[in-house]
Amino acid sequence: MTDTPVEESLFQIIHCYHEYAAREGDVETLSLEELKALLTDNVPRFMETLGRKEPYYITQLFQAADKNQDNQICFEEFLYILGKLVKDYHLQYHQQLCAHYCTQHSLY
Amino acid sequence: MTDTPVEESLFQIIHCYHEYAAREGDVETLSLEELKALLTDNVPRFMETLGRKEPYYITQLFQAADKNQDNQICFEEFLYILGKLVKDYHLQYHQQLCAHYCTQHSLY
Repeated sequence: MTDTPVEESLFQIIHCYHEYAAREGDVETLSLEELKALLTDNVPRFMETLGRKEPYYITQLFQAADKNQDNQICFEEFLYILGKLVKDYHLQYHQQLCAHYCTQHSLY
Repeated sequence: MTDTPVEESLFQIIHCYHEYAAREGDVETLSLEELKALLTDNVPRFMETLGRKEPYYITQLFQAADKNQDNQICFEEFLYILGKLVKDYHLQYHQQLCAHYCTQHSLY
């Protein structure tokens, strides 16, 4: 069975998680450094557009996601961060649509 | 700024949600029929591999996600379904890796 574009997207996100989790320590979880690298490299809009580039933001995000407080983000905990990412990109998606509509209809 | 593959994946998932939400009724939310069509067309592995093809499964999933019980799935509520999808594909990702490893090392 060939993957659909949505399935490819889901695998892409999961693959990214594992690529960074494997960098050091436990290969199945993200350390704070691994999370920082993952977000900086892969979702720069999330990091830059919303002015969240400050180191303390990632630390706060890490702590909020680390439900069992073992100082690592497991895949279940990564879903919390993914939820934030998707909400964020949803907002940006609408902003892009709006800008596109305004350009098309010469509203600027 | 060019989108990274992960950003493209996030936009792909969001675009898919809106494509189906726009089909009938409220263009910002998914009806049960729209959710069924979205899942059947875009995540057939989720629907088939795990034997969840039965109509009642989607109805149960819809009801569980519809937190405010307005009989529509808004984007916030879609995040609940997305969480289930990502968990499911994470499991399949590991099964594929395992099968790949076993083939490489002639373990079958």
